Amino acid sequence: MATKRMPSVLWTNGGLQLIDQRKLPTELVLMRCETVADVTHAIKDMVVRGAPAIGAAGAFGLAIAAKNFPAIEHSTKEELMKVVEQAKTMIDAARPTAVNLMWATECVVKKLRDRMHTEGSVADLIEYTLLVAQALAEEDVAINKRLSEFGAAIVPTGANILHHCNTGALATVDIGTAIGVIYECHAQGKNVHVWVDETRPRLQGARLSAWELMREGVPMHLIADNAAGYLMLTGKVDVVLFGADRVAANGDVVNKIGTYKLAVVAHENKIPVYACVPTSTIDLSFVDGKDIPIEERSADEVACIRGVRIAPEGCPVFNPAFDITPHRYLTGIITEEGVCSPPFDQSLAKAVAAAKQRRARSEKL
Amino acid sequence: MATKRMPSVLWTNGGLQLIDQRKLPTELVLMRCETVADVTHAIKDMVVRGAPAIGAAGAFGLAIAAKNFPAIEHSTKEELMKVVEQAKTMIDAARPTAVNLMWATECVVKKLRDRMHTEGSVADLIEYTLLVAQALAEEDVAINKRLSEFGAAIVPTGANILHHCNTGALATVDIGTAIGVIYECHAQGKNVHVWVDETRPRLQGARLSAWELMREGVPMHLIADNAAGYLMLTGKVDVVLFGADRVAANGDVVNKIGTYKLAVVAHENKIPVYACVPTSTIDLSFVDGKDIPIEERSADEVACIRGVRIAPEGCPVFNPAFDITPHRYLTGIITEEGVCSPPFDQSLAKAVAAAKQRRARSEKL
Repeated sequence: MATKRMPSVLWTNGGLQLIDQRKLPTELVLMRCETVADVTHAIKDMVVRGAPAIGAAGAFGLAIAAKNFPAIEHSTKEELMKVVEQAKTMIDAARPTAVNLMWATECVVKKLRDRMHTEGSVADLIEYTLLVAQALAEEDVAINKRLSEFGAAIVPTGANILHHCNTGALATVDIGTAIGVIYECHAQGKNVHVWVDETRPRLQGARLSAWELMREGVPMHLIADNAAGYLMLTGKVDVVLFGADRVAANGDVVNKIGTYKLAVVAHENKIPVYACVPTSTIDLSFVDGKDIPIEERSADEVACIRGVRIAPEGCPVFNPAFDITPHRYLTGIITEEGVCSPPFDQSLAKAVAAAKQRRARSEKL
Repeated sequence: MATKRMPSVLWTNGGLQLIDQRKLPTELVLMRCETVADVTHAIKDMVVRGAPAIGAAGAFGLAIAAKNFPAIEHSTKEELMKVVEQAKTMIDAARPTAVNLMWATECVVKKLRDRMHTEGSVADLIEYTLLVAQALAEEDVAINKRLSEFGAAIVPTGANILHHCNTGALATVDIGTAIGVIYECHAQGKNVHVWVDETRPRLQGARLSAWELMREGVPMHLIADNAAGYLMLTGKVDVVLFGADRVAANGDVVNKIGTYKLAVVAHENKIPVYACVPTSTIDLSFVDGKDIPIEERSADEVACIRGVRIAPEGCPVFNPAFDITPHRYLTGIITEEGVCSPPFDQSLAKAVAAAKQRRARSEKL
């Protein structure tokens, strides 16, 4: 299955190629990024979106910054580092909520700093920047594969899965997180069916998840977000799966707006609720979710849909892109290191440490 | 204020005039109904919507049936009754969930049956049909006025009110139910602010409530339905108000899809939740909500927005128009006979009996 998919984030012909997700599902258009400004704009305007995907795009953005650095006779590695760090500042500011973006750009910068003082020319360091970004992108796919297998183990055969936003191949480099779990269930013949929350205001569910799931042949129905409660109350949902943009040390989850409502209603109906995230989404520097910055986006995202006005001209709008789901509404958090259960402050710290060890081991190889 | 409003349902120049609510907020278009088929189509296609408004439109539909009855020499009152009853069957089937429609058409038919055996010609009975429909429409306005005053008394000064769907002048003959309460608060200088749920899939909040509230100068912000939970969790909602399409004897409320999620999350955050309904919305023939028919509407309502496709072609959709909110999530039910509190089986029966007495008294006059 995975081989048929076109990667949402791909380094090819010396540049970054993205699927323009704003145009889906009606058009499949590719966009090429040749400058740091191109990458910043693509992230900000949601050409590419999904926490792991924007992390990979950000890392490739730094590779572009390095590639465009004029490695002329007297230029130094310090000057290159400065250019890359400026690019990081610019790219990181494009979207404030998803931690994966800063995490990925920080990984690249840290590796470059380590490498700077070893032998090798400016040109070598430029080439190395791309290698690091490519390794991160490859690692994302491997992480999603492991995460998906852990997740599939907790989904019962024949389950009706309710899914919010888009967490599939389009939200990652490939496979996906929560939708990765769904793909894995489907591949294992678990006979699952998905209720796809349309996910207003940006409609990532209707436009992207429905498109992905239909292409993969996973049985599904699209619903208005408002219908999710009725389905739960009438016994038609067995498990709720979604991704996250940032998870605090205590397990509070910041994810696409609407996740909190979903989790509360699922909890009320005793339906298990899982966030599916790579450990890079876990930000132990936040004790809980309440101080994580919540991005507010433009009024037009609510007042217009695909260019068509749905509210009166001049209508005041409040449009937070994310919300905070307190950890008490979560059954578990599925990562590439296994399923974390409450108390999350312990299980998440353990998963993050395990991922760090795994990364250190693989680097020694 | 009220005098500036154009009634959504109005008998004028010998026919029924409706505001075509499908065209709002971008166009204010009036539609004329001259036949029973016109009225049935207008209700089914949601030219007119809102439980009390479709009740009034249905009653006028029977007046049209009577008006179009050929009162030639040998036609009888029995034949007229048959025509009116056939029209009732046709109109009632247009929307199955809101009880006000059947309630209003039943009121008209019952009055005609009572009148049939008194003196008077076929022409008199035809004229009487219109008088009954007009009295029902006028009564709707008076009921909403009383309901709004009872409701305003429970809303604190400076409150942030969260409102779902449209329950304003457009959903009734005039004033509104839950939005009637908001108008009354505003008129009393209570300094309220409204969070307007856009109300997918038909966007009655974005298209109709935002339009109404802006015209009346009530401070408001439009939100995606998904944002309501975040507002509640962060302390920005003081009370939740909505209408209903049918209320069971135990207080279970059938209302626009998404009401259930809203009520559960409000309850979880200890925010008071009120359904605002005329007693004609209370259907004591249903012990609880679970057997009330829930209308399913077309896939296109979810997959397309104002003619623009937002989901892949051929995408399967599940689109229930209403959901059931079990009474335990409600703080109270505001009616024209006062605010009903739990246990609702007692308070609702009392309100219905009081309304019946009031109607009997006013008819004696």
